[in-house]
Amino acid sequence: MKIALVQLNPVVGDLKGNASKIIEFVERARAISCDLVVFPELSLTGYPPQGLLKSKDFMRDCQAALHRVAEHAEGIGVLLGAALRDDKDRLYNAALLIENKKVVGYTAKRRLKAFNAFNEACYFESFCGTDILTFRGHRLAVVVGNHAFSDAHYEDVDLIVNISATPYRYGQFKQYDDLLADIAKKLGIPLVYVNQVGGNDDLVFAGISRAFNELGQCMTYGQPFAEDMVVFDPTNVSCQLPGLQEDISWLYKALVLGVRDYFSKNGFKKAVLGLSGGVDSALVACIMADALGRENVLGVYMPSRYSSEHSKQDAQVLADNLGIQYRVIPIESIFGEYLKVFNGMPSPVGDLAEENVQARIRGNLLMFISNREGRVLVSTSNRSEASVGYTTIYGDMCGGLAPIADVPKTVVYDICSYVNRDREVIPHNTLVKPPSAELRPDQKDEDSLPPYNVLDAVLSMYIDDGLSVDEIASRGYDRLLVCKILNMVQRSEYKRRQAPLAIRVFSPIEGAVKNPVVHGYRWG
Amino acid sequence: MKIALVQLNPVVGDLKGNASKIIEFVERARAISCDLVVFPELSLTGYPPQGLLKSKDFMRDCQAALHRVAEHAEGIGVLLGAALRDDKDRLYNAALLIENKKVVGYTAKRRLKAFNAFNEACYFESFCGTDILTFRGHRLAVVVGNHAFSDAHYEDVDLIVNISATPYRYGQFKQYDDLLADIAKKLGIPLVYVNQVGGNDDLVFAGISRAFNELGQCMTYGQPFAEDMVVFDPTNVSCQLPGLQEDISWLYKALVLGVRDYFSKNGFKKAVLGLSGGVDSALVACIMADALGRENVLGVYMPSRYSSEHSKQDAQVLADNLGIQYRVIPIESIFGEYLKVFNGMPSPVGDLAEENVQARIRGNLLMFISNREGRVLVSTSNRSEASVGYTTIYGDMCGGLAPIADVPKTVVYDICSYVNRDREVIPHNTLVKPPSAELRPDQKDEDSLPPYNVLDAVLSMYIDDGLSVDEIASRGYDRLLVCKILNMVQRSEYKRRQAPLAIRVFSPIEGAVKNPVVHGYRWG
Repeated sequence: MKIALVQLNPVVGDLKGNASKIIEFVERARAISCDLVVFPELSLTGYPPQGLLKSKDFMRDCQAALHRVAEHAEGIGVLLGAALRDDKDRLYNAALLIENKKVVGYTAKRRLKAFNAFNEACYFESFCGTDILTFRGHRLAVVVGNHAFSDAHYEDVDLIVNISATPYRYGQFKQYDDLLADIAKKLGIPLVYVNQVGGNDDLVFAGISRAFNELGQCMTYGQPFAEDMVVFDPTNVSCQLPGLQEDISWLYKALVLGVRDYFSKNGFKKAVLGLSGGVDSALVACIMADALGRENVLGVYMPSRYSSEHSKQDAQVLADNLGIQYRVIPIESIFGEYLKVFNGMPSPVGDLAEENVQARIRGNLLMFISNREGRVLVSTSNRSEASVGYTTIYGDMCGGLAPIADVPKTVVYDICSYVNRDREVIPHNTLVKPPSAELRPDQKDEDSLPPYNVLDAVLSMYIDDGLSVDEIASRGYDRLLVCKILNMVQRSEYKRRQAPLAIRVFSPIEGAVKNPVVHGYRWG
Repeated sequence: MKIALVQLNPVVGDLKGNASKIIEFVERARAISCDLVVFPELSLTGYPPQGLLKSKDFMRDCQAALHRVAEHAEGIGVLLGAALRDDKDRLYNAALLIENKKVVGYTAKRRLKAFNAFNEACYFESFCGTDILTFRGHRLAVVVGNHAFSDAHYEDVDLIVNISATPYRYGQFKQYDDLLADIAKKLGIPLVYVNQVGGNDDLVFAGISRAFNELGQCMTYGQPFAEDMVVFDPTNVSCQLPGLQEDISWLYKALVLGVRDYFSKNGFKKAVLGLSGGVDSALVACIMADALGRENVLGVYMPSRYSSEHSKQDAQVLADNLGIQYRVIPIESIFGEYLKVFNGMPSPVGDLAEENVQARIRGNLLMFISNREGRVLVSTSNRSEASVGYTTIYGDMCGGLAPIADVPKTVVYDICSYVNRDREVIPHNTLVKPPSAELRPDQKDEDSLPPYNVLDAVLSMYIDDGLSVDEIASRGYDRLLVCKILNMVQRSEYKRRQAPLAIRVFSPIEGAVKNPVVHGYRWG
């Protein structure tokens, strides 16, 4: 049996487009004599479809799209992830087996997670039927979703098929890869894993669909972060592939793919961003240039009286190195008008309001360019500053997308080193100077925040690992400082509620727990 | 048996404060010889506690607060809603019965909703034990949550107790009131319903706890929209109260309470808002003055070259009528600087970028005042414009709270009539002139939008009732227009993701379904 694994990059909601793409792959797989072609979880709707599943219009069109796909399933079996309403009006996150233009069987996701990437339990019901589908005499155990294997023993099963749409999270590849290999090996059954690829809102899917033989050896895999089709024949002896190793290049690719798909799936081509000469905007500019092509990216440097000479130079050099468009728009004349309005004279008194209005003037300038030139503004916030609220709402938080807002500052530096691996794209000076918002004379981030290595370590233990204050303190961090950081996270919840979409690559999907904006709990 | 119904207004997360308040009510109830005092669902943590429930620190402090309350339960029974971890580490949304300083029994919420006000199924497990608690020889059937009654027949039960934290939704009072009365009558058992009161983030709880006799007659009720304690003795014959009738005054009170609690629970006293002379900002100003006291509210009129003479006058008259603080800050000089930057001259070319930047300059001015004077900015958006995106992101969408962002425009007018019931607070002219954003010469909302009565009707059928395009069209609306409106809703999802908290009074809690920001589905 020759099986095609198609790691599809669907557009959420674009039923016609997704169906056409699926049909194209069905035809490609048939052309190379595959018996079965497998598509990821919810590939017809795209993942996550969210509230569209509540729309009667959408669900009707889903049915029509499914029929269209079925029309093309001749001479080949199609195993497809789609939303399915059964005859008792129950909606399932299903895997449909289509043969000879008909749905000949289905199974669906069993253990729905109340709190996964899109709260699927709000939309779907848990499936209680069998997960065994028979195809041309072969018994397939079909599992929908990641980490969704049941404890059931599979008897007389020829192949395990896991279709999934697993949001990428940096550093987690090996864990699930080992799990899949172990299942294949333990049960002595070949296993194929077909994963979605592409960016949808805040999620990125990595693809890297894989086939394991009954010894748990990886026999083939789809490209990371690209649409791909690979073929696996469990009955055919072939060589084990060298193991895949996740490294920081994957993280960079995830961010690029997330940005590229946000733009292309939205129908946008061009971007604008503010360049400060700092490390965050430098990295975002690199990502944008890779995602959209340098000709589509405009960097704007907006100096004030507090901007340093090196900032201007670093921004200019970065833009030159990348070959993106570059403009300089001083904010002084506008800032002066605000000062006249509030201070009665064009000179500052030196309060926070004056710091913030500078960031907001920059936000307005960038949004003006966005509106006039049809460019999407991207924000350059990172996770460290977003977590503690060291950012100006309606200022540097402006944007449709915040590509690195889920990347800790210390990791921003790591990615920059990766970007500079062959040549200096990001100026050396940007990487070595102390971070500063340059909103008042001689300002440094560390005047207001703990050193980033400490801040990031504490944030990671709290956000990613869910540790308590005592647990964090017991790892050698000052208890008072830990409480201070956790309370800063809480107090800035209101800003994050109004933040642009971030591309989620670090924070655990299930840990994306919202705290109340208004609340009286204090860590201490 | 004399029972005190305490409709508590807790602060989410303020375990110490909530415990103190609970203890105070326990003592008040004991002082008037009550046998049992009943508090609402999750009154110790406040509702909704959201992600706090995932914090080990918070859960430890919850336990401590519970012990403190128990210490005061002497000579009186206490039935209290709290988060409870059982000995198998399962977390429940529980009702604890405390007597003689000890927890003597508990039950918990059974049918958790995957998608209620805070996705409680993400945090709690469904309870499978009994809901019968015995107190001083009386058998109590205790039900946690609204619409959470099971089909079980209650045998030998003396009293049904429903503790709840039911978010207020305008126009829904009678439905649940009838349901409670029916249950009491059908089963022939007295019933008390104890509901939370107060505003927490986007939710408002109405209170109006009630006691029904075994004939389903309402014997006592707590005040709407205020903390209150009332006493009920099911064995004592007393008179049926006249039925409560919901009217538009409740909606106004809900908004005032939501605003007041957002401020007081956050520790803020003072507000600022933009006054345009239009109906939305007029109503918000009235709400703010009622919620915070007129001395704490500052209205700012920010005219441009497109502002009409009547707008200035209407804003001024409104501020005078309310007795709030009032300032005028023209935006012309700042607008001129932006035009110089982008047009090379201080005159406009007449595009959308120039319209938006005016709204954003106003946002910046108000945020400057917010930052300098410690005033919370409130946004004056309504649901109609927020739904279709007829609003400027980072402009009039700026604010910590958007008091009427869940109120349809047509209802804004209804509430204004209520506000003006005794005297003209909101100028007559504000209510009769055609709505305009005044961002270009002679602009009217209806140049860009359908008439508000049509828009609101379609939005309500789609958002509130979940109807399909065909169902809406079959009620007499143009199909093309319906599709146009639904697609406008979709296209503006990205703005709503960055919108301030709205006080939810119209949109169904379970219908607050997010659609993807990036998606390819089109109604048509």
